[in-house]
Amino acid sequence: MAAKDLVLRGLMSPIKPMMEEAHRVLEGELHDPSPAAQDMLAHISRFKGKQMRGAMLLLSGKATGAYSDEHPTMAAVIEMIHLATLVHDDVLDGAEVRRRVASVNQRWDNQVAVLLGDFLYTRAFGLSLTLSNRYCSRVLAETSRKICVGEIEQSAMRYHFDLPQADYERIAGAKTACLMSSACELGARYPEGGVSSERDAYGDEMAAYGWEIGLAFQIVDDCLDLEGDPEKVGKSLGVDAEDGKITLPILAVYRDADETIREKIREVYTVPDLDRRAARLHDVCDVSLGIEVAMARAKDLVDSAIARVSALPKSASRRALIEIGDYVLVRKW
Amino acid sequence: MAAKDLVLRGLMSPIKPMMEEAHRVLEGELHDPSPAAQDMLAHISRFKGKQMRGAMLLLSGKATGAYSDEHPTMAAVIEMIHLATLVHDDVLDGAEVRRRVASVNQRWDNQVAVLLGDFLYTRAFGLSLTLSNRYCSRVLAETSRKICVGEIEQSAMRYHFDLPQADYERIAGAKTACLMSSACELGARYPEGGVSSERDAYGDEMAAYGWEIGLAFQIVDDCLDLEGDPEKVGKSLGVDAEDGKITLPILAVYRDADETIREKIREVYTVPDLDRRAARLHDVCDVSLGIEVAMARAKDLVDSAIARVSALPKSASRRALIEIGDYVLVRKW
Repeated sequence: MAAKDLVLRGLMSPIKPMMEEAHRVLEGELHDPSPAAQDMLAHISRFKGKQMRGAMLLLSGKATGAYSDEHPTMAAVIEMIHLATLVHDDVLDGAEVRRRVASVNQRWDNQVAVLLGDFLYTRAFGLSLTLSNRYCSRVLAETSRKICVGEIEQSAMRYHFDLPQADYERIAGAKTACLMSSACELGARYPEGGVSSERDAYGDEMAAYGWEIGLAFQIVDDCLDLEGDPEKVGKSLGVDAEDGKITLPILAVYRDADETIREKIREVYTVPDLDRRAARLHDVCDVSLGIEVAMARAKDLVDSAIARVSALPKSASRRALIEIGDYVLVRKW
Repeated sequence: MAAKDLVLRGLMSPIKPMMEEAHRVLEGELHDPSPAAQDMLAHISRFKGKQMRGAMLLLSGKATGAYSDEHPTMAAVIEMIHLATLVHDDVLDGAEVRRRVASVNQRWDNQVAVLLGDFLYTRAFGLSLTLSNRYCSRVLAETSRKICVGEIEQSAMRYHFDLPQADYERIAGAKTACLMSSACELGARYPEGGVSSERDAYGDEMAAYGWEIGLAFQIVDDCLDLEGDPEKVGKSLGVDAEDGKITLPILAVYRDADETIREKIREVYTVPDLDRRAARLHDVCDVSLGIEVAMARAKDLVDSAIARVSALPKSASRRALIEIGDYVLVRKW
């Protein structure tokens, strides 16, 4: 197990039994009487990953005192929506490997990946409807919409080398930051959904914490895509350049480059049938300068997120929320 | 306007103002502040079609006396889920034309079609959560799951020439019949969801009516795919054979054919890079025999559905529900 995974496992210790309960709920949902559906679902359970979003929901509930016996179910719902976005991403990106397991669209075809993602979305909504309060369903319907719109915008913004950083952050944030933000907000606010003013203040702060952690996480991901080790990261890298996605490190390099270098960068992205685009980027510009800018921004976001949870009453869960911030940066550094 | 569309317009007259209200709600949902999302949504509104599922929900509500001012919103929700399945179908089938509008995956790419379908699903769930009762959300989460599983099974059952007819009906029914069944059940049962015994009986009958009408509709679709006029049907035809889907007319022909003909049928489906597979089917076997069997089954289903609604109190809406049965068959005959 990599050092970073040991760190993460340590962070989860205050919520170990709740994570196990969330995991049991999740596994229970990944079954279907149809043998064809079951065949795919057995495969998907191997994608389950670190379950960070579910953990953040539980930690947020514990740290703010809002924890209820419905929190593990919400954690499972959040993880299912995350799984659905991963499966549909595999259709989108053409990524060939994710977490060292053949991705769904490799093992079956795109059509089945679309359906499996749909299945996960609908099961997630169905599970949320078993909760005593509709607040979770409402938050998740709205969050899922934002994730879609963010990805639609990301697709529309491909090859936009002059994208303002604020637009990049809004769009890049729609995927990871939105869901982490909703996880933390639900953890702090369910089931009242903003009835008491103390709960409201916690909900707002935890939503902002989740957004900042999620955006930092995405920025680190963008950096890893440019210079990570595929073995360690456990998924295909260099796909952003293949897909025409201009991420923060490249935006930063492009912004500060002269026209000669800018032209070369555009060529690497746009000349048809070019192979190894990400590797070629390193030949035509100093990618490390962009990564420095991006990682500084990630660090600022994490600092802000940590300051927010530092205001919570002292607890093991608060400590874990703080350390998640450090962990997000350690993935890269 | 084709004669069949005039027929359909006449059927809708008892619920004209409610259909207009449902349409207003639907149009209101097909907006988003994001320009990129809006660009796609403007296109999708041209897909809206006959809105039969929404109409069936409203007619079911009127004919059973369950109609409430929340019914038009439910009709809009049903239509949005239907739209989502159409958009994701376009990813699945590689169909090139649907309702004479360039299909979403032609105008944009697969990745955007996946996201747009996701957007429609999440907006549909979000809209259902504005209703006073969770019953509609629960029915639709479960229905959407069944639709996915049905399509997953359909994909798994490609090239199964010995598929028993009951399995074909269960799988083929998962798409159209499930959603029509839920539309009719919701119309009759919302909001109580089975509290009174009279409402329960109506709900069960209307669910069965919707299933039978929907399955008949799908069988007719399968026949049209084999021998319809693309101009009149308004979408690509012959795609089932391209996709390896063995539909009821072909199952019936294959079942009754000798081994020589069976082998030729299998070849038409499976020889790589063959063009015009559907047309070639007509060369190697008598497709009209299979269509006769399939249409006889569709007629039986419609007869059963009509008998169910004939037991309802006499009304213009009951009349329309009966005529929808006739309309489903007229599409072909």
